[in-house]
Amino acid sequence: MAEFTLHPRLAADTIFVANWALSRLQLMNDSRYPWLVLVPRRPNLLEFFDLSRADRELLIEELTRAAQCLKEISGSTKINVGALGNQVPQLHVHVVGRHPGDPAWPGPVWGHSPAVSYDAAARDAFIAQFLSAC
Amino acid sequence: MAEFTLHPRLAADTIFVANWALSRLQLMNDSRYPWLVLVPRRPNLLEFFDLSRADRELLIEELTRAAQCLKEISGSTKINVGALGNQVPQLHVHVVGRHPGDPAWPGPVWGHSPAVSYDAAARDAFIAQFLSAC
Repeated sequence: MAEFTLHPRLAADTIFVANWALSRLQLMNDSRYPWLVLVPRRPNLLEFFDLSRADRELLIEELTRAAQCLKEISGSTKINVGALGNQVPQLHVHVVGRHPGDPAWPGPVWGHSPAVSYDAAARDAFIAQFLSAC
Repeated sequence: MAEFTLHPRLAADTIFVANWALSRLQLMNDSRYPWLVLVPRRPNLLEFFDLSRADRELLIEELTRAAQCLKEISGSTKINVGALGNQVPQLHVHVVGRHPGDPAWPGPVWGHSPAVSYDAAARDAFIAQFLSAC
């Protein structure tokens, strides 16, 4: 494809939050975890080495900013960062707030158990809080 | 601590490969996956936002280099990158070559099943091949 489009699986599982300089920021629709997904808005990306060096520098700054904001608003014990792509090949980076006692702790969230969707009010409140903190 | 030291759990589970400009590169002692761990050689790091911006740029370049070399020598379908730290708090980044049919595919490798250690010859061969490709 010649232009960036969000993979249909990501579009189904996540909610638009913002467009940053490089990445489209999406909220994972799983109310059990504060969980963002950053998707660099360039076509045909699978791996970090498909990005230009300048875009990689943007990506690490954006995922760091997302991690710090998530930590501040959620009080998470630990931020997990992951770029897997075994099921959705489009390059995307998960930034997830974790704490002891969350459903998957201390294992990874990916593949652990079905998501629990937000209700509309909680989803909107989370996004508003995130945007005001960032 | 005032100086960088490798967390004892990482020291037990991984094998020294090289010191790059920022990161100590370790091979995960699990012969089922081509799996490197990059540990930035700075004290008291837990999260990406504990690094300076300059060090973050080094880290993204080093993990990209590691990913590309792993892909070249292993022919992996997909490279997984993850920084979790739920069990070992010292900031470390996993770079793992994956393919359909590997034991954890398409789920994450972390927490999946016990490692299968390398024998000495296979370990030394992997490290030599990696260093010659990088």
